[in-house]
Amino acid sequence: MSNPTAAMLVIGDEILSGRTRDANMHHLAGRLTEVGIDLKEVRVVSDDAAAITAAAEALSGAFDHVFTSGGIGPTHDDITADCIAAAFGASIDVRDDARAVLQAHYDRQGLEMNAARLRMARIPDGAALIDNPVSAAPGFTLGNVHVMAGVPRIFEAMVASVLPTLTGGAPVISHSVEVHRGEGDIAGPLKELAEKHSELSFGSYPFQRDGRYGANVVVRGTDPEAVVAAARALEALFAE
Amino acid sequence: MSNPTAAMLVIGDEILSGRTRDANMHHLAGRLTEVGIDLKEVRVVSDDAAAITAAAEALSGAFDHVFTSGGIGPTHDDITADCIAAAFGASIDVRDDARAVLQAHYDRQGLEMNAARLRMARIPDGAALIDNPVSAAPGFTLGNVHVMAGVPRIFEAMVASVLPTLTGGAPVISHSVEVHRGEGDIAGPLKELAEKHSELSFGSYPFQRDGRYGANVVVRGTDPEAVVAAARALEALFAE
Repeated sequence: MSNPTAAMLVIGDEILSGRTRDANMHHLAGRLTEVGIDLKEVRVVSDDAAAITAAAEALSGAFDHVFTSGGIGPTHDDITADCIAAAFGASIDVRDDARAVLQAHYDRQGLEMNAARLRMARIPDGAALIDNPVSAAPGFTLGNVHVMAGVPRIFEAMVASVLPTLTGGAPVISHSVEVHRGEGDIAGPLKELAEKHSELSFGSYPFQRDGRYGANVVVRGTDPEAVVAAARALEALFAE
Repeated sequence: MSNPTAAMLVIGDEILSGRTRDANMHHLAGRLTEVGIDLKEVRVVSDDAAAITAAAEALSGAFDHVFTSGGIGPTHDDITADCIAAAFGASIDVRDDARAVLQAHYDRQGLEMNAARLRMARIPDGAALIDNPVSAAPGFTLGNVHVMAGVPRIFEAMVASVLPTLTGGAPVISHSVEVHRGEGDIAGPLKELAEKHSELSFGSYPFQRDGRYGANVVVRGTDPEAVVAAARALEALFAE
């Protein structure tokens, strides 16, 4: 049986403008690999309702899970919740359970609930809340879409809340072999080895260091013994 | 007149598996902003021919320019050139101009041309070569798609070769104001200011530092005076 598939949807003008460097993609990719969910695609779109809704619809239809990052704060450019509701044809309004979570948080902090903060209690009908242990404002799961905050510390906490609720597959094991030859020398023998082991995937990632060419050849698969055996075969093939 | 639009297509299992952290997106985003081309979407897809071809077709149809990163080396998992050719219905084979560039490079290095290295001279019919000052193997431009290497040093060199050939728009100026209040306090007044200045875009990027909430509010626009005036208005609005 093959592993469940996933896509990520990053919402953020600040990443597309080059102002901020995204950190959440790398975090999510690593965590999904650990639990045996295959991340197949990432899309980064701008803070534009039509773009967010269209991407959410496309990814939600194509993959088992979609994880979104960004656009669920209290400011006018935070429109992700409304877009995901629209993608599923769900209605959305301030929900009592989310409001109660926020009210308790602001009471503890001695802050006023106002219209902007109340915006963060807008949750689509039928969605399940995702706990936010950092700043209370919840994420949510609607259908197969998990909507999370963009601030890395909060995103990571929400991923940690969501992943245990999902059924993963066999974790993918990888083994990396550093080869001190140019990819042009490696490619032929590597292709033959890859054809012999079609149950494994072989990737070659070139580097140049101190004027010499080399590559990290990575073997991936769900059977640890097969991965290690192929890595040994690689080492023997390209021993210096 | 609005600026030309662009999308980026990153090809790479190594990024989706969490093994490698992408650096090219952040680089391209910054360079495009400088020359006045608006990066509207980024997609990261796996080393899968159907996924690469479908994404290239969709992005090429929706945006003025598409920049791809990765999958043009000599190994069996390097399939980007063939996929882009397929997306445009162009034929592809070893081309004499690309082969000459590679042959000269390998002659200088004292390396043999072999079948794997010759793969890097596969260039679609009608494409223009993109210079690779680092390791010779060229990228190419076919239609509105610019195909470049994934190794960051080579990607950056190719971007530097391509950008001067494109017509940009007005560079987007941004001005950031650090506000030491929670986003929940900022959101209302910020929305009013944004509505008054519809020619500018306002983004709010929250942070938490030493237990205090704050946000960087960023004003962006193509008119430097309007951007600075709005930033001053922001400072006055949220003076402590």
